Amino acid sequence: MRIAIYAGTFDPFHNGHLDVAQRASTLFDQLIVAVYEYPAKNTLFSAQERVEMVRESVRDLPNVDAELFSGLTVEYAKNKSACVLVRGLRAISDFEFELEIAHMNRNLDPELEAIFLMTGLPYAYLHSSIIKEIAQLGGSLNGLVPDHIAAALRKKNGSASMVGKPPTSNLVP
Amino acid sequence: MRIAIYAGTFDPFHNGHLDVAQRASTLFDQLIVAVYEYPAKNTLFSAQERVEMVRESVRDLPNVDAELFSGLTVEYAKNKSACVLVRGLRAISDFEFELEIAHMNRNLDPELEAIFLMTGLPYAYLHSSIIKEIAQLGGSLNGLVPDHIAAALRKKNGSASMVGKPPTSNLVP
Amino acid sequence: MRIAIYAGTFDPFHNGHLDVAQRASTLFDQLIVAVYEYPAKNTLFSAQERVEMVRESVRDLPNVDAELFSGLTVEYAKNKSACVLVRGLRAISDFEFELEIAHMNRNLDPELEAIFLMTGLPYAYLHSSIIKEIAQLGGSLNGLVPDHIAAALRKKNGSASMVGKPPTSNLVP
Amino acid sequence: MRIAIYAGTFDPFHNGHLDVAQRASTLFDQLIVAVYEYPAKNTLFSAQERVEMVRESVRDLPNVDAELFSGLTVEYAKNKSACVLVRGLRAISDFEFELEIAHMNRNLDPELEAIFLMTGLPYAYLHSSIIKEIAQLGGSLNGLVPDHIAAALRKKNGSASMVGKPPTSNLVP
Amino acid sequence: MRIAIYAGTFDPFHNGHLDVAQRASTLFDQLIVAVYEYPAKNTLFSAQERVEMVRESVRDLPNVDAELFSGLTVEYAKNKSACVLVRGLRAISDFEFELEIAHMNRNLDPELEAIFLMTGLPYAYLHSSIIKEIAQLGGSLNGLVPDHIAAALRKKNGSASMVGKPPTSNLVP
Amino acid sequence: MRIAIYAGTFDPFHNGHLDVAQRASTLFDQLIVAVYEYPAKNTLFSAQERVEMVRESVRDLPNVDAELFSGLTVEYAKNKSACVLVRGLRAISDFEFELEIAHMNRNLDPELEAIFLMTGLPYAYLHSSIIKEIAQLGGSLNGLVPDHIAAALRKKNGSASMVGKPPTSNLVP
Repeated sequence: MRIAIYAGTFDPFHNGHLDVAQRASTLFDQLIVAVYEYPAKNTLFSAQERVEMVRESVRDLPNVDAELFSGLTVEYAKNKSACVLVRGLRAISDFEFELEIAHMNRNLDPELEAIFLMTGLPYAYLHSSIIKEIAQLGGSLNGLVPDHIAAALRKKNGSASMVGKPPTSNLVP
Repeated sequence: MRIAIYAGTFDPFHNGHLDVAQRASTLFDQLIVAVYEYPAKNTLFSAQERVEMVRESVRDLPNVDAELFSGLTVEYAKNKSACVLVRGLRAISDFEFELEIAHMNRNLDPELEAIFLMTGLPYAYLHSSIIKEIAQLGGSLNGLVPDHIAAALRKKNGSASMVGKPPTSNLVP
Repeated sequence: MRIAIYAGTFDPFHNGHLDVAQRASTLFDQLIVAVYEYPAKNTLFSAQERVEMVRESVRDLPNVDAELFSGLTVEYAKNKSACVLVRGLRAISDFEFELEIAHMNRNLDPELEAIFLMTGLPYAYLHSSIIKEIAQLGGSLNGLVPDHIAAALRKKNGSASMVGKPPTSNLVP
Repeated sequence: MRIAIYAGTFDPFHNGHLDVAQRASTLFDQLIVAVYEYPAKNTLFSAQERVEMVRESVRDLPNVDAELFSGLTVEYAKNKSACVLVRGLRAISDFEFELEIAHMNRNLDPELEAIFLMTGLPYAYLHSSIIKEIAQLGGSLNGLVPDHIAAALRKKNGSASMVGKPPTSNLVP
Repeated sequence: MRIAIYAGTFDPFHNGHLDVAQRASTLFDQLIVAVYEYPAKNTLFSAQERVEMVRESVRDLPNVDAELFSGLTVEYAKNKSACVLVRGLRAISDFEFELEIAHMNRNLDPELEAIFLMTGLPYAYLHSSIIKEIAQLGGSLNGLVPDHIAAALRKKNGSASMVGKPPTSNLVP
Repeated sequence: MRIAIYAGTFDPFHNGHLDVAQRASTLFDQLIVAVYEYPAKNTLFSAQERVEMVRESVRDLPNVDAELFSGLTVEYAKNKSACVLVRGLRAISDFEFELEIAHMNRNLDPELEAIFLMTGLPYAYLHSSIIKEIAQLGGSLNGLVPDHIAAALRKKNGSASMVGKPPTSNLVP
């Protein structure tokens, strides 16, 4: 049995992530979407919220699961007996970043392979950060995230945690 | 009448920005240089200072105006009846960033077009951040910003707001 | 009146080109799709065929015309009293190539401006060469070119000019 | 059973190709290295020579085979009941090229997945063309190709087919 | 006598930096590894620790020295009578950043030249930040830094300054 | 004494090449501009014409010479007792190409170093091919090449070798 890991912060999981998970799930016997518990960057959603949102998003994919993890991704993969890390590629800037991680992970564990899937064109320029910014500025999230995540973003927006915070990225200059 | 928007933080407006504004002003009936009021990043100059510096810089261009704005750029453009967003392109890293914003803005408002102008070669590697760093370290701003902005940077440098702060970007490693 | 030029070989004109022409036609009073008569690369379609295919493709756009041209693009633009060259941008490799042409054209005629439009996502990876290759190998052209151009490609494929020629680009390794 | 296809011209197969084939062979039940019979570019080695050189190179990998193919890669993959195309990624220029092919192949057959493996660092800048050039100029092929391919290159070099031909690529300016 | 400057934050100095220093030391009469005292980013190691670690790393290179510096790099170079700045290039993202700095430095001092050396392949994706992250997560630093720096990282890791801090970069998503 | 080699086809030598040669000549005791005799691509100027044009261009630089060479650049460098290859870098596409050559040359001769100089901004998008195209189409060569080379291009243009040939590159689409 071949197990694949698709690791990320997923703050939040969006349709580009879902696209990668769906494709990867057809290539391996099991896919674990691994939600990193303690990213250096502050997250809008808690670790528990993030993993629940992934679980809800992938519940129609029978061989896909979501889990929290911490520590080195290569250690986590070894514990899960996974043979491969799955990564989505959107653009050039992704590519160099991914090359760096891939080569460093290979240095840490030469047995673990990494593969890259091209995100579908409609999601080619989707980032979690831009989605949060659109939500904060009241723009439409139509087609960008699953419905339950759009609802979670709108709810979060009305809450104290986003009030008064300026947009975090780049739709506004 | 075709109205174009050139939006940015402009902290501060420099000769590369001015170059883009001058070129764009010949292509459309009116150009609004839209200064974003509440950027996520901290600005050296206040919103009011930034818009005044733009106004002073473009006062010889009869069909160009400067204004403060907030919220989604596409909403602002609609309110102004603008048909097009103008963006300057310098380098590859700009390009991917701009592709992302352009595709996301198109998702929010398919009617609004975005066009890109190549910054003139002498300004091809000019960023506001590097200008602030040169000012802070006492280097020459000759040819990089309009004179009144060079003066404003020197004055700011002597003021409390920059004393003791380390350079913010990358002329020093 | 502002006249824009959208110049290319258009061998053949495809849906990505049409997308750029449609967008550009909303920004200027007149748009001339200028078909280069004598490209260095051998064309599948004759100059006359290429300009006719463009004309047919843009006939619903009232302020858009197609014409053959030869010589320097900047000279042609001057003869047409055009103020701007329109170019489509798809990807990084386009971008560097376009930067080079833009800076060289500016050297030849500083008065002529060049603007860049992002090709819509569904057309982000469309090239004339890959379309010819798909046609040659009998793949579906659905959504890639206007119907009349798909027909012309199929007809050309049955003709002597493509028989026995290997695919010209990159769908096959 | 999951079958993967690794298609290319392989003129000749080198250690970077072998590296990709070895990695991919651990991820799927069967890997077919598919040698394209009629590439547009002229090959140094005949189709038969190329497929034999691949076969010799992968004979220690029990679930890897080499075959000649022609026509669209997606059609060939369907005939072989393959679920995935494997591609090696070295650098940025590869990446854009591969994005284009991947999106076009997806247009032709949305069921067929494509995955990308990073070539190992020692092979990150290896191309078949540069290997042929080194061979032609008498440089060392040590570590670049399997021994039997180095021998084939040296033999070809003494033969009529390369005599008097200038180097084909870029070690010489 | 030609003096070269290799300036950086070096937090910490790693084998990629050492590779660049070794190569550069063969090209000029003297090489000064200039450790920037007050970088904007917080450093793990103090300025004094960083310069000592460099000194220890280069002590077998007779014409190489390490020094602390502050202020504009071009001013420092002038004070040292250096004729050239040495920079390492790893990847595309480095390249654009370096272009920007090089053109701005040339604006500040047209007499001072900058040269770029390609980092050796084994170090092509090495950054100080990823090394700190591996150290923090307890991964192996084998082959990435000189031994005395690996020891310093492990010691720092046990100290108060890193306890409870999340990883700072990108091995974990 | 340190000798540097600046190798190329130089068909023809232009102001960007001259800029690189001038800078490099200040860094080393001697600089040899090495003109490759038999490039794969057809040249407009003969080997003899190309080396003469370089010689004329650099005659005010006392420590710079021009020579023809053939074979591997690393072999030529060894014969000349050169310690370093000089290359100009303009843009991203140059960069990947140069990385490939540099790593392959290092494989052939680890003793030979390669350094990269950034072409000055006014020459950042200058290629020999675009210069030949401008010449052929009768555009101004002002500021692009030394005067004697502009004259040679105009003379060549009137001769049989360019009559009736379509432009070779990319100013015309």
